[in-house]
Amino acid sequence: MIRFFNGKILALNGNYDVTDHELWVDGDKIAYIGPARADAPAFEREIDLAGNLLMPGFKNAHTHSAMTFGRSIADDMPLQPWLFERIFPLEAKLTPERVCWLFKLAIMEYVSGGVTAGFDMYFYRPQSAETCAEYGFRNVFCSLNDTYETIIAEMDKVNSLSPLVSMLPSIHAEYTTSIDTMKEVLRVCQERKLPFFTHISETATEHAGSIERHGLTPTELFDSLGLFEYGGGGYHCVHLSENDMEIFKKRGLWAITCPASNAKLASGIAPLEKFSAMGINMGIGTDGPSSNNSLDMFREMYLACVLQKLSLGDAAAMDALKVLSMACCGSAKAMGLNDCDCLAEGKQADMIVIDLSRPSMQPINNIPKNLVYSGSKDCVKLTMIAGKVLYENGEFFLPDSPETIYENCQRIVAEMTA
Amino acid sequence: MIRFFNGKILALNGNYDVTDHELWVDGDKIAYIGPARADAPAFEREIDLAGNLLMPGFKNAHTHSAMTFGRSIADDMPLQPWLFERIFPLEAKLTPERVCWLFKLAIMEYVSGGVTAGFDMYFYRPQSAETCAEYGFRNVFCSLNDTYETIIAEMDKVNSLSPLVSMLPSIHAEYTTSIDTMKEVLRVCQERKLPFFTHISETATEHAGSIERHGLTPTELFDSLGLFEYGGGGYHCVHLSENDMEIFKKRGLWAITCPASNAKLASGIAPLEKFSAMGINMGIGTDGPSSNNSLDMFREMYLACVLQKLSLGDAAAMDALKVLSMACCGSAKAMGLNDCDCLAEGKQADMIVIDLSRPSMQPINNIPKNLVYSGSKDCVKLTMIAGKVLYENGEFFLPDSPETIYENCQRIVAEMTA
Repeated sequence: MIRFFNGKILALNGNYDVTDHELWVDGDKIAYIGPARADAPAFEREIDLAGNLLMPGFKNAHTHSAMTFGRSIADDMPLQPWLFERIFPLEAKLTPERVCWLFKLAIMEYVSGGVTAGFDMYFYRPQSAETCAEYGFRNVFCSLNDTYETIIAEMDKVNSLSPLVSMLPSIHAEYTTSIDTMKEVLRVCQERKLPFFTHISETATEHAGSIERHGLTPTELFDSLGLFEYGGGGYHCVHLSENDMEIFKKRGLWAITCPASNAKLASGIAPLEKFSAMGINMGIGTDGPSSNNSLDMFREMYLACVLQKLSLGDAAAMDALKVLSMACCGSAKAMGLNDCDCLAEGKQADMIVIDLSRPSMQPINNIPKNLVYSGSKDCVKLTMIAGKVLYENGEFFLPDSPETIYENCQRIVAEMTA
Repeated sequence: MIRFFNGKILALNGNYDVTDHELWVDGDKIAYIGPARADAPAFEREIDLAGNLLMPGFKNAHTHSAMTFGRSIADDMPLQPWLFERIFPLEAKLTPERVCWLFKLAIMEYVSGGVTAGFDMYFYRPQSAETCAEYGFRNVFCSLNDTYETIIAEMDKVNSLSPLVSMLPSIHAEYTTSIDTMKEVLRVCQERKLPFFTHISETATEHAGSIERHGLTPTELFDSLGLFEYGGGGYHCVHLSENDMEIFKKRGLWAITCPASNAKLASGIAPLEKFSAMGINMGIGTDGPSSNNSLDMFREMYLACVLQKLSLGDAAAMDALKVLSMACCGSAKAMGLNDCDCLAEGKQADMIVIDLSRPSMQPINNIPKNLVYSGSKDCVKLTMIAGKVLYENGEFFLPDSPETIYENCQRIVAEMTA
């Protein structure tokens, strides 16, 4: 067992209380949270928090991790030429080997930024899942426009690899997918009673195009096909119609917001305050590092709050506490990681330590709000996933060294852009 | 002399080139930038950059540093009650001793985030200037609604303290200042041929109120009084009219944007792309930590870019290179720190080292753009001001320990909120 003591705990277990409890980890699970006890067992490691904060990790509920190749490769371009002239031609050069190294770089960024799980949509999922399992990183994969047989085969492969990885059936988006392909996915969702997630109404063009092509918004189309029978949700959801929101509400779907990517690509601001008022479930993701460009959940939380304030002209809009909960708990539940949402006995030990001795965390007036408005990656002192420490005090505990990962990614980018 | 070698240099000396030159510091100045030389002198210290990036520090061109007391003390409130019910009553309890400790906390945040100078408007300037001089932090102070005699006395005191600190005559804003007080400041500006900076059109209410009170916008009012005879500029500039922009252009005034604070307080988005197209001078600041809530120039640069893209619906708007230059060079020139803008021989050694081995800086595709879109405070490895290292590898080299500063700030907040 590992003991965390002498610090503060923000469990996010239905409230925002900060306690001076201690926490024990047994294997991959939280074994105890509470006051120090006389009957404590012998610990294999005791981690002195030295007054710092233990809290649940952030869950990145929408990303394309291996797009690290495209970070700052084509910034400040209009969306269409960026995607069609720069990103797609490079993606055509991806191989499983390349995707795995590029994913490893993303894992470094995740764990050093306090992210303990990802919801990933990209190529070469079984190979990426092996990388995640090997690296100890928790990830839920989404399939991409495949046939029923391919999806089932991939899902069975990924789901049997490790408790850390799993896979759901999916499509890329309405505008890139035929109705026939959607029906392949539908068959998987229905047979296995699985939720359906995909890009939904990220841009106004996509939303209007769907109405033109099908007489229905993307949300209405997927719903009419039966894809949401077992729940699911949409990535981005910037341009949902009133009726879309009603469908989200009725079906208990998750709206996953990606504010940084939507800002950089000028896609718009998702109406989170409205979603919240309607009781729509919400999570947060970074989108891929080619469009964000970082995988920084502090930035996403901050933007989720202030962009609502800006767009509504109301400094009281979108309370930070709600957004903190979205980033840790909401995102986890969207991904089906119901054991990773908060700190409680029996839950997975997916946790981070926040260094309260960084200047931006001082003075200590309101820790949960301060995490959102002044927290940053330099405050992440330790990241643990399923009871294993993957990052601590600037050092990575991963199978490959940072140098090896960087050298391989730099080589791969050189090969892809040659 | 101190030698930086074995790394990359982004001098920002009129271009965005990244070289593999080395750089020598003699006293407070840059003595040499160029290839390694056989005739190198004996160095008192040689800093191996190990492939990392040496660049000019960020200059925070608008802040109220000592407002660290109010960080996360009253988030998610409408602007008026936030200011009048929470912030102003607390400010009434400030003393010189309190302001100096609160300023020290801000200096910690500045140097650990790569900020090498501040343009500060707040209370107890001579005492704060002594703190800055003692701490080795470069700062330009602005006076606040004082008489001619008080301003002159304070300026003479601050300007004689240290080459690191200086002071300019100023007022808080149109809506908080009488015309008589503006004329006191005007007398100082004219006698000493000094530029005039103040809050300008931060909110729509302030802008409209000025027109109601004076028949003139804040910019027009100040210009009509002659306050801009020797240049200057405005903090925020969210709601400038067309004519205001013409005045800014004609007078060579500086528009200092504070995108994070303007977002959090729902004040709006300053039209930077338009300023840029008109050739208006631009700098960036954080505003105070009560409204931001952090003092993070990476966040400001990122927002300066993406909020233009969002508000104009154009992903190509506001090129990151322009914003990087604003944060390092533009802000310095706005503050009159013409020797601190870029890295060149004879310039002040106000520099930072960026850790390119942080995951968000990899792979290396485009360093200057990546600084803006994926840079963060965890990438700041070293901060030097006037040839002195104040922060290196997470350690502060300041007269007081972090613990002492935190304890005093926490005590002060407890006293002020008691």
